[in-house]
Amino acid sequence: MPSIFTKIVKGEIPSYKVYEDKNFLAFLDINPLKKGHTLVIPKKEVDYIFDIDSKEYQNLWNTAKKIALSMKKVIECNRISIVVMGLEVPHAHIHLIPLDSMQDIDFSQPKLNISNDEMVQIANRINKSI
Amino acid sequence: MPSIFTKIVKGEIPSYKVYEDKNFLAFLDINPLKKGHTLVIPKKEVDYIFDIDSKEYQNLWNTAKKIALSMKKVIECNRISIVVMGLEVPHAHIHLIPLDSMQDIDFSQPKLNISNDEMVQIANRINKSI
Repeated sequence: MPSIFTKIVKGEIPSYKVYEDKNFLAFLDINPLKKGHTLVIPKKEVDYIFDIDSKEYQNLWNTAKKIALSMKKVIECNRISIVVMGLEVPHAHIHLIPLDSMQDIDFSQPKLNISNDEMVQIANRINKSI
Repeated sequence: MPSIFTKIVKGEIPSYKVYEDKNFLAFLDINPLKKGHTLVIPKKEVDYIFDIDSKEYQNLWNTAKKIALSMKKVIECNRISIVVMGLEVPHAHIHLIPLDSMQDIDFSQPKLNISNDEMVQIANRINKSI
């Protein structure tokens, strides 16, 4: 069965798209820990990030860097943090989370509720500054 | 003033070394969230990971992958997670943390107290499987 992220790649599930190219997609996490919390994924479905082949793995990190630099331009924060866990969705994904304190990456805290309009606006602002 | 990690690179502060080459160093976190919790750093002191130049940034992630694959061989866990925050030490570092549940990367939880002998043993086991 395709992962929920593959369904997003295929457009079967909508997303707040931040960036897309032939091999990678970035979109806002719909359960964000912070405004601008973004997921970067390879379009090709691989569960474990360290199983991705070398070239694609490098390009995934290059893509994450490009997006993180744009996020930092448009979202007020100390820096952009990186988290990769992968226990919930079996499709490798990099969390890019605007960071001000270490508590910001506590995944057990209640997620933010951001309106559709604001999510669209955040995604567009990051996208335009790439 | 050199960062605490630069002092580790120079051997002025001891560490449980997991891996070393010309440009990168990996060693056990002395305040581990889990057994085997490892830090991977560039020897060159740069605060923010996304400020590291492209080639070095790619090689840093390649090094992290190499170490994570070895960690997974010798430490019982679901997978190796990645966390990069950088609020405490102004020298870019990748946390590689053996993961079984999302709570494992909660940095506010009490750190493990592991004996010197066991830390040496863990570092050696990871190192030997690289």
